[in-house]
Amino acid sequence: MPIITLLSDFGWKDSYVAAMKAVILSICPETHIIDISHEVEKFNIPMGAFVLASATPYFPADTIHVAVVDPGVGTKRRPIIVQTTRNTYVGPDNGVLMLAASKETIRHVYHATNPQYMLPKVSKTFHGRDIFAPAAAHLAKGHHPSDFGPEIRDYMLPKFTKPRLRRGNLSGEILYTDDFGNLVTNISVADLAKIGIREGVALVIEFKGKTIALKLCSAYGQVPTKSPLAIIGSSGFLEFSVNQGNASQVFGINVGEHVLVSR
Amino acid sequence: MPIITLLSDFGWKDSYVAAMKAVILSICPETHIIDISHEVEKFNIPMGAFVLASATPYFPADTIHVAVVDPGVGTKRRPIIVQTTRNTYVGPDNGVLMLAASKETIRHVYHATNPQYMLPKVSKTFHGRDIFAPAAAHLAKGHHPSDFGPEIRDYMLPKFTKPRLRRGNLSGEILYTDDFGNLVTNISVADLAKIGIREGVALVIEFKGKTIALKLCSAYGQVPTKSPLAIIGSSGFLEFSVNQGNASQVFGINVGEHVLVSR
Amino acid sequence: MPIITLLSDFGWKDSYVAAMKAVILSICPETHIIDISHEVEKFNIPMGAFVLASATPYFPADTIHVAVVDPGVGTKRRPIIVQTTRNTYVGPDNGVLMLAASKETIRHVYHATNPQYMLPKVSKTFHGRDIFAPAAAHLAKGHHPSDFGPEIRDYMLPKFTKPRLRRGNLSGEILYTDDFGNLVTNISVADLAKIGIREGVALVIEFKGKTIALKLCSAYGQVPTKSPLAIIGSSGFLEFSVNQGNASQVFGINVGEHVLVSR
Repeated sequence: MPIITLLSDFGWKDSYVAAMKAVILSICPETHIIDISHEVEKFNIPMGAFVLASATPYFPADTIHVAVVDPGVGTKRRPIIVQTTRNTYVGPDNGVLMLAASKETIRHVYHATNPQYMLPKVSKTFHGRDIFAPAAAHLAKGHHPSDFGPEIRDYMLPKFTKPRLRRGNLSGEILYTDDFGNLVTNISVADLAKIGIREGVALVIEFKGKTIALKLCSAYGQVPTKSPLAIIGSSGFLEFSVNQGNASQVFGINVGEHVLVSR
Repeated sequence: MPIITLLSDFGWKDSYVAAMKAVILSICPETHIIDISHEVEKFNIPMGAFVLASATPYFPADTIHVAVVDPGVGTKRRPIIVQTTRNTYVGPDNGVLMLAASKETIRHVYHATNPQYMLPKVSKTFHGRDIFAPAAAHLAKGHHPSDFGPEIRDYMLPKFTKPRLRRGNLSGEILYTDDFGNLVTNISVADLAKIGIREGVALVIEFKGKTIALKLCSAYGQVPTKSPLAIIGSSGFLEFSVNQGNASQVFGINVGEHVLVSR
Repeated sequence: MPIITLLSDFGWKDSYVAAMKAVILSICPETHIIDISHEVEKFNIPMGAFVLASATPYFPADTIHVAVVDPGVGTKRRPIIVQTTRNTYVGPDNGVLMLAASKETIRHVYHATNPQYMLPKVSKTFHGRDIFAPAAAHLAKGHHPSDFGPEIRDYMLPKFTKPRLRRGNLSGEILYTDDFGNLVTNISVADLAKIGIREGVALVIEFKGKTIALKLCSAYGQVPTKSPLAIIGSSGFLEFSVNQGNASQVFGINVGEHVLVSR
């Protein structure tokens, strides 16, 4: 049974997610539809890209991932299908698919123009239902990405900010705050190794004029309840957390803010 | 594989939705269960009816739709099964099913009284689990709606308010606010045509003593970011929106409030 | 098709739930995955136990239930598999599984140590993805609980507080507040019978210095809209409710608070 995943900023209140599933099942009845998240912050493309890329590695190969964070719906931004060495991605050409797709190897990107694979009437406000869901379902039925339209090479490939090494400090930023309040940075284990930080070692973080010393732990429970810690999170990046607490509230930092990490 | 959809005001925190799915799978293991929404405002029957009717047209024919917004659970209000020319609906006789069912053609409505198709012990507080979920599952297994109880003709058919044309103005109301803050009115494209409004034309809206001029756009991106616009939304009604913003917050209008639309 | 249910305190915003589903489908593609709840209050093991135990009786026998409310992840707390006379449970050895499992009869509890049934790389922060989801999927494929590790007998079996009878009064507590604001106590129909309370009878509740007289109704609609009532809720316990209102807000009581019930 083919798997189609859905990610959006639609929320769960409205019928929008259900309408996409309805369209998919109308075209390809035997499909496993899995929600990745529909609580991406409205119009927040980088957040959508991050959440999508956190989930995709765990799905079987040949999964069809649909992501609809689409502030430009109905404008000239193109609907695209991205074929990687592992999966197929469907969504708007605004970068939301590309953090996940870039982790694999992008083989071809197609501009989805073929009306045969869209709903008969295409609105200018809900391409999730009218273009992306039907495209995913037709892919699930076995149509090849190249059937959907011409290959393009000028697709949007956003720069994902990497941390910089400056005089023994790592200058990074907060990429994401999860529902527990864990603060996920863009600093990887490899980056930390460059300045000699590994598990068990203390590190110093600076943000918004504050300086905090933290231990790089391997489990939350290595510090007392309600105490802060640093940890390599489940997506492989340095995170700041509070054991059984909410680091985002305790630290008062938000996504996009800069952090300086040193020994 | 039969499709059963679920809509309710239960929210996602409790085990209520899962209990309904558990009952369905116990009776009819091979079913696609699709959530339409469980975040209908508590006890808000018109909102449940609107969200259901927005999703149903996109599902394949012969889908079984269950809607449980049911403030009268355990009282004399009847559990019903509505057979239309396209689908089957299961829920309380309080109107929640009828906006969706009326868009198709209602053929028969049955009062679900047959205890054979209920859980052995029926509570007076959770008919979603004890009556509606088992009814849907037995329908999915192939039982005919008429097996569930006597046909009735005095079912509740709520009036869904239509806009009125008065001296070149359309007097309508806000039907629904979606999770983006888009304000959905009860005014259709056909209504707008009667006063000469079509895409690209400016219109004037009046509500709560304010007057605002808006352009009837075909895509959010036709006005600058954070600017208001009017648009025919994905469910075919006139909506007031803010490009990449929240119209409900910006305009300060709520569901049920009156709006006057003119050229 | 085997059924695997998921319960957690992960929320719906992040990709954590999807990652668990991805792992399950990678190992056992033909599985019905049903969410029980992912909105358990963060780290609240008793609440997770309550929500799980409310749903499990309605699932078919031989369901695999996974519950991940896991403040001790990565510490010495053990991952376990609980085999009852009816179902299999997977999760941390912190009690979250045991209210549901105890309602059936616990036959064996195994410490899941076999790395063959874990992801190749096991993090210390996300055992839901790395240990529990793969364990559930391997169980769904037919592996026996005893394949996963040694049987243990010193598993955590939390005491679930029972109400006490004192001089004709029942001294209980608020176990849970549902999304409607209904206040679920730990007092059962059998407990009420001991002090002569049955449906239709008035009862008196005392909490936080207040005394309120309520009728024990069998349906919300037996009192006027917005009026308080007592009722045996859908999970078989005494609840305090407000007809079409929110009892938690009206009464101002929270989970864990004591209530004295008398005639």
